[in-house]
Amino acid sequence: MALTPVSSTRVSSKLGAPNREIVLVDCPDEVGLIHRITGVLQARRLNIESNHEFVDADARHFFFRAEVAAADGAVAAEALRADLAAVLPATARVRVTQVERRPLVVCATREPHCLGELLLLDAVGELPGRIVAVVSNHDILRGLVERFGVPFHCVPAPGDPADAAARGAHEEAVAAAIDAHAPDYVVLARYMRILSTAFVYRYAGRMVNIHHSFLPAFAGASPYRQAFARGVKLIGATAHFVTAELDDGPIIAQDVISVDHTYTPERMAQAGRDVEKLVLARAVRLVLEERVFVHGRRTVIFG
Amino acid sequence: MALTPVSSTRVSSKLGAPNREIVLVDCPDEVGLIHRITGVLQARRLNIESNHEFVDADARHFFFRAEVAAADGAVAAEALRADLAAVLPATARVRVTQVERRPLVVCATREPHCLGELLLLDAVGELPGRIVAVVSNHDILRGLVERFGVPFHCVPAPGDPADAAARGAHEEAVAAAIDAHAPDYVVLARYMRILSTAFVYRYAGRMVNIHHSFLPAFAGASPYRQAFARGVKLIGATAHFVTAELDDGPIIAQDVISVDHTYTPERMAQAGRDVEKLVLARAVRLVLEERVFVHGRRTVIFG
Amino acid sequence: MALTPVSSTRVSSKLGAPNREIVLVDCPDEVGLIHRITGVLQARRLNIESNHEFVDADARHFFFRAEVAAADGAVAAEALRADLAAVLPATARVRVTQVERRPLVVCATREPHCLGELLLLDAVGELPGRIVAVVSNHDILRGLVERFGVPFHCVPAPGDPADAAARGAHEEAVAAAIDAHAPDYVVLARYMRILSTAFVYRYAGRMVNIHHSFLPAFAGASPYRQAFARGVKLIGATAHFVTAELDDGPIIAQDVISVDHTYTPERMAQAGRDVEKLVLARAVRLVLEERVFVHGRRTVIFG
Amino acid sequence: MALTPVSSTRVSSKLGAPNREIVLVDCPDEVGLIHRITGVLQARRLNIESNHEFVDADARHFFFRAEVAAADGAVAAEALRADLAAVLPATARVRVTQVERRPLVVCATREPHCLGELLLLDAVGELPGRIVAVVSNHDILRGLVERFGVPFHCVPAPGDPADAAARGAHEEAVAAAIDAHAPDYVVLARYMRILSTAFVYRYAGRMVNIHHSFLPAFAGASPYRQAFARGVKLIGATAHFVTAELDDGPIIAQDVISVDHTYTPERMAQAGRDVEKLVLARAVRLVLEERVFVHGRRTVIFG
Repeated sequence: MALTPVSSTRVSSKLGAPNREIVLVDCPDEVGLIHRITGVLQARRLNIESNHEFVDADARHFFFRAEVAAADGAVAAEALRADLAAVLPATARVRVTQVERRPLVVCATREPHCLGELLLLDAVGELPGRIVAVVSNHDILRGLVERFGVPFHCVPAPGDPADAAARGAHEEAVAAAIDAHAPDYVVLARYMRILSTAFVYRYAGRMVNIHHSFLPAFAGASPYRQAFARGVKLIGATAHFVTAELDDGPIIAQDVISVDHTYTPERMAQAGRDVEKLVLARAVRLVLEERVFVHGRRTVIFG
Repeated sequence: MALTPVSSTRVSSKLGAPNREIVLVDCPDEVGLIHRITGVLQARRLNIESNHEFVDADARHFFFRAEVAAADGAVAAEALRADLAAVLPATARVRVTQVERRPLVVCATREPHCLGELLLLDAVGELPGRIVAVVSNHDILRGLVERFGVPFHCVPAPGDPADAAARGAHEEAVAAAIDAHAPDYVVLARYMRILSTAFVYRYAGRMVNIHHSFLPAFAGASPYRQAFARGVKLIGATAHFVTAELDDGPIIAQDVISVDHTYTPERMAQAGRDVEKLVLARAVRLVLEERVFVHGRRTVIFG
Repeated sequence: MALTPVSSTRVSSKLGAPNREIVLVDCPDEVGLIHRITGVLQARRLNIESNHEFVDADARHFFFRAEVAAADGAVAAEALRADLAAVLPATARVRVTQVERRPLVVCATREPHCLGELLLLDAVGELPGRIVAVVSNHDILRGLVERFGVPFHCVPAPGDPADAAARGAHEEAVAAAIDAHAPDYVVLARYMRILSTAFVYRYAGRMVNIHHSFLPAFAGASPYRQAFARGVKLIGATAHFVTAELDDGPIIAQDVISVDHTYTPERMAQAGRDVEKLVLARAVRLVLEERVFVHGRRTVIFG
Repeated sequence: MALTPVSSTRVSSKLGAPNREIVLVDCPDEVGLIHRITGVLQARRLNIESNHEFVDADARHFFFRAEVAAADGAVAAEALRADLAAVLPATARVRVTQVERRPLVVCATREPHCLGELLLLDAVGELPGRIVAVVSNHDILRGLVERFGVPFHCVPAPGDPADAAARGAHEEAVAAAIDAHAPDYVVLARYMRILSTAFVYRYAGRMVNIHHSFLPAFAGASPYRQAFARGVKLIGATAHFVTAELDDGPIIAQDVISVDHTYTPERMAQAGRDVEKLVLARAVRLVLEERVFVHGRRTVIFG
């Protein structure tokens, strides 16, 4: 019983049109790259409808994103990719892809604010993707998820956190639940499990996380209580790709919200939830529209 | 089939505790008002847990809000109100009220973004109130609303907008649908009907609306197309109480979102929806927590 | 007695380097434009160090900005321009320019906040341009300006505002004072004179203005008193190119600042001054770095 | 040769009026504090023109700030203070003070952006205080400071940073230069010296510092290069009182500015300077207007 999307407010985009593709290239910079790429596009009579390009002068790396449209009929995606690869350096990454509501799986634990925001955006047609499943280590969010007609898989975590074998088995089961839905992206919407390196590599470049951020930073437990004790005036959130270094992957989006001395730790935490859901939604939209390149520890974002 | 609220993320507030009340006073300013109010509170052995006070020097008007707690047992609300009224000017408005998830009715038409945000906040325990019904002049949002276990009433508008009698009858039917749920507040979440003065007065001081705001302002149709043509760099939204002057009632909350030349009119409209839902949610929370005083065309907000 | 700029904080930019030029192109869009431009750059062995490009799909217009560097020796700017013009449509605007602290004249009347900010930025090396003179219709700001070692010209306005001939003569004198310094840009930093169409055209595309902006907008006098009376929660500012339509030229930058019910009209006005100087400084930097294209009523800004 | 302030833009405040005082109280919370305070004010026939009050429920501490005006003649400040102390707990801090352009000394090293902003605000009448001197360990900023007619004292630091005796003597000389001007507050506007505990205590609760803040935080040298390498999307600044713990005193103001992948480390540093000067100016204004209470590691700010 899928929720009928409300047509009048769908994300207005021609990205899913059959004669339209997104061309993504990144490679070490050298003279003439754009000239060669646009030469191929012109030869194939493709119109460039939007085009972003950036050279990281520090890393001497080139990034390119274009939305192209065929004047007549469909873009021959694979042939276009081959033509581009032929004129570009051997190390170039070249993708030609349609962005039509890519599948994503969301992982969550107990907190509904980030998960709920994504479910709602999908339900009302404001997400350029579709949530094909939610996987959780708790059952508490089942009611929320099933309300949106989305499959919910609970994979309970082992009781003993010191039992490494059980932890490994749990993670395998979570991965299996995710993979059964063949998502393009995995979004950790307050999924409160420490991930193994193997799990992180399995979804390298395809897994997005959200966490709170403070000025200054706080280590340890009860960050909002620490933030309160320290009298901070801003509460922030950071969305990033997940890498082996905890909470330290390439940043996709950040924002902050103002607080003051009248905020209790609880209201600070609420402000934190408000900014987390906002930042995560922004990051997921950017990723789904293929606007984000990762290069080393940095991102290049063609907003 | 009400959605079970997720306890760990409920709005953290002691406002609904049985021994707690909110005291709200406003009256023309004169010497000694706080002294008298706090005298009454002290005599009744009530502890002031939070206290805001403001004098509008221009209008010479006094505003006061306190959250008070009885050391033992419940606050005798009506007796407290009478004691306060006895020491205050005759024109003073005095209220002693509990804020425990006040009922509200949401009106909407076709767009789900604002309505969905409020439904979601309620469902996950982040709204200090509860949506008891949704009333619409279209049936299109029924699926979204019923998914949250909230009653949905469709009151179709008359076909002929020039038929004043039919329009009046429609508005009466809408008001009846609202009143059947005895809400404390009515929220217009993109309800696209022009309201009669009678309707506005019926819910005076209890009806909140949201609309987009631009710098500069745009009159007439297709505001996002105008904003695009004008190359604006900010898209805003304003939440306000509804008064007889269209879109010109006392402002509760405002915010803006940045856009640039790469935004199509459609993406500008999406940015507008994002900021509208944010601002409306902020305003509704403030109103539900009784933090907003209206005085003439202005509001005093004890955030 | 020019103020010695503090080297450690100068705007860090290689834009003024001798072997570096900015290439600016805009023309009706057609297939192959980037390919042709980059072909010329490649043939001349110029490296593209940064490159922005945008197609306004609505207007079917193409915009291009690149910072290019010659591998050996200087860029032959005029020859490069000619080569580009030869491969582009006849209506294309093509510029090859160095950005090395372009001269600008600031006009002001009585208020020092915007003028002072620009003078200070210039003095401490944070302005990618240099203020060569200040022209005012009052003498009140002379002390501030001369303190920065900048020439100050007072051109008193005629006593009788209804005397059209005197007003015309005054404007001619102002223009003469400006033109004596041959500025690339003219910045109106709270210059409180109504400008004739002739004056506006004289500096078409080269004159930037700042004004306050409100949500909602206020017409007439005492806008901050109106904003106070209306209880606005945001005070904004807009910087724009000056066109014949008053305060309605293409927008370069906008921002807002939060206010609340505790603000008197005077504090609202101070908040307005704070945001005005911020927005004007941002706009002037963008313009001086040749990052702003004007097309019709819109700007394309390659930040 | 003091710069004549421009009257039309002076900070609009009645705070310096002869019949006006600011009353500041903080003490452990107990029942009836406001009642007692307002009782004293009423007995002395003082009108409360503005009044803020806050109870830190966590620390059970009470904070109160009022601007009071005598109906006839001046407020008898010392007598008022004594009356208040008589009705308040013995541990209460009670101050009755006029805010009339309090003297402050600014310390800086090489960077002009924060210092220049404060000098300019003072010069144009937008600072509710006056800069009576600038003290620096370098001579580089002399030109900027003397341009504003403000005394500049250069106290060169010892050549050998390991020479503890020389460092102590330098700090003594700096303190002497500061104290010669008897400032109420000392502002560290990018003063790049590590301070001894003795120096910090000398100006306890009266010394404000500014530093950059990042999400996430970066330890060690070249923070902007680290921020660039990490691809952060926000650059922040924090103004705080100086305590013995480096950069860890009670926070007065914080803000952030957006950056993206096109920013070089140099442009990130410029964005950092922009937000630093903004945040420092905001904090200094709040402190000068006696709107900031310090309690433990937190501030209570009555904006």
